[in-house]
Amino acid sequence: MARMSLPAPVARLIEELSRLPGIGPRTAQRLAFYLLRSSPDLARNLSAALVNLRDQTVWCSRCFNLSENDPCPICQDPDRDQNRICVVEEPLDLLAIERTGLYAGLYHVLHGSLSPLEGRNVEDVKIAELVERLQAHPVAELILAMDADHEGDTTASYVAQVAAAHASRITRLARGLPTGADLEYADESTIASALQGRQDSA
Amino acid sequence: MARMSLPAPVARLIEELSRLPGIGPRTAQRLAFYLLRSSPDLARNLSAALVNLRDQTVWCSRCFNLSENDPCPICQDPDRDQNRICVVEEPLDLLAIERTGLYAGLYHVLHGSLSPLEGRNVEDVKIAELVERLQAHPVAELILAMDADHEGDTTASYVAQVAAAHASRITRLARGLPTGADLEYADESTIASALQGRQDSA
Repeated sequence: MARMSLPAPVARLIEELSRLPGIGPRTAQRLAFYLLRSSPDLARNLSAALVNLRDQTVWCSRCFNLSENDPCPICQDPDRDQNRICVVEEPLDLLAIERTGLYAGLYHVLHGSLSPLEGRNVEDVKIAELVERLQAHPVAELILAMDADHEGDTTASYVAQVAAAHASRITRLARGLPTGADLEYADESTIASALQGRQDSA
Repeated sequence: MARMSLPAPVARLIEELSRLPGIGPRTAQRLAFYLLRSSPDLARNLSAALVNLRDQTVWCSRCFNLSENDPCPICQDPDRDQNRICVVEEPLDLLAIERTGLYAGLYHVLHGSLSPLEGRNVEDVKIAELVERLQAHPVAELILAMDADHEGDTTASYVAQVAAAHASRITRLARGLPTGADLEYADESTIASALQGRQDSA
């Protein structure tokens, strides 16, 4: 007697969806059935977007930002301050800084942080490429905008060291209380940073 | 000065992914960047699976099960008991019953349950199609295998009523303690069902 199982195309989609981070077999199954019931356009548009994702984007060969063109619009923009480079771990970090509207220099995306414990070493991130860039064009300021965690600190220290000869000034993002924070619930390390970095009241 | 934002193909993929249930903009963004960093095969295979999903599957015109062929393998299988139909809400419910290996009859997938409060009425599920099927071929047993919730109960009562003339026997799945349950933590309704449905000890 035939035992029914999932039709092959559905099983295959569930398998492919399960390869994505945070999507287990249950979620993948739910998504597949949602797609089966929705307008065929939903699956079709998602499919097209997936193909275009890789075909129509590149990593900027200068700053390693994600872009539709190489070099990216920031590296190509003569109005941006060529004497300032902000070093970030990920492209999304770059976008977060862009959203503030407060920075007008260039960027360098490392594509990761150093974590010897997790096997992420200097050669796994774009640090050599940064040094090469700085050797060709030293800058007035190198802003280290890594995550405020242990890996970010390790990475920033290392970059500061290897870039020292090629930047007049090397700065790091301030640490302290995030906007809206309730002092009572802030962790000790954040409060310690806020105290150490305290500034004269305006 | 150019402000950097997400490249259009990435923004589009994030938008498409966000249309899926349970995937918010943050998750969509994380998935898109994961796909950008992974082997291009990942996005490519997922894209192909999405296209095939709708192109290579159909709903069985007899039982409304999901299948690569119409009628589905179960409806086409002469070894399955043609005098028994098990009514389920969803295709995944059918698969759950198939996995037990204990049922050899046919199925009917309603594609939903009745919930007047949420606007899901008789015409929104495949009940008329079930009645038509039963009118053409009355069965010895109609098994109502709806979810054990309020909507499932409402649906089962309604189906039992409209199918009464076309089935010698209409049964429902047993209610009681699930395997592995700790009686202490079972809810009152489950314990009540288990008591009411108690059977002679073997």
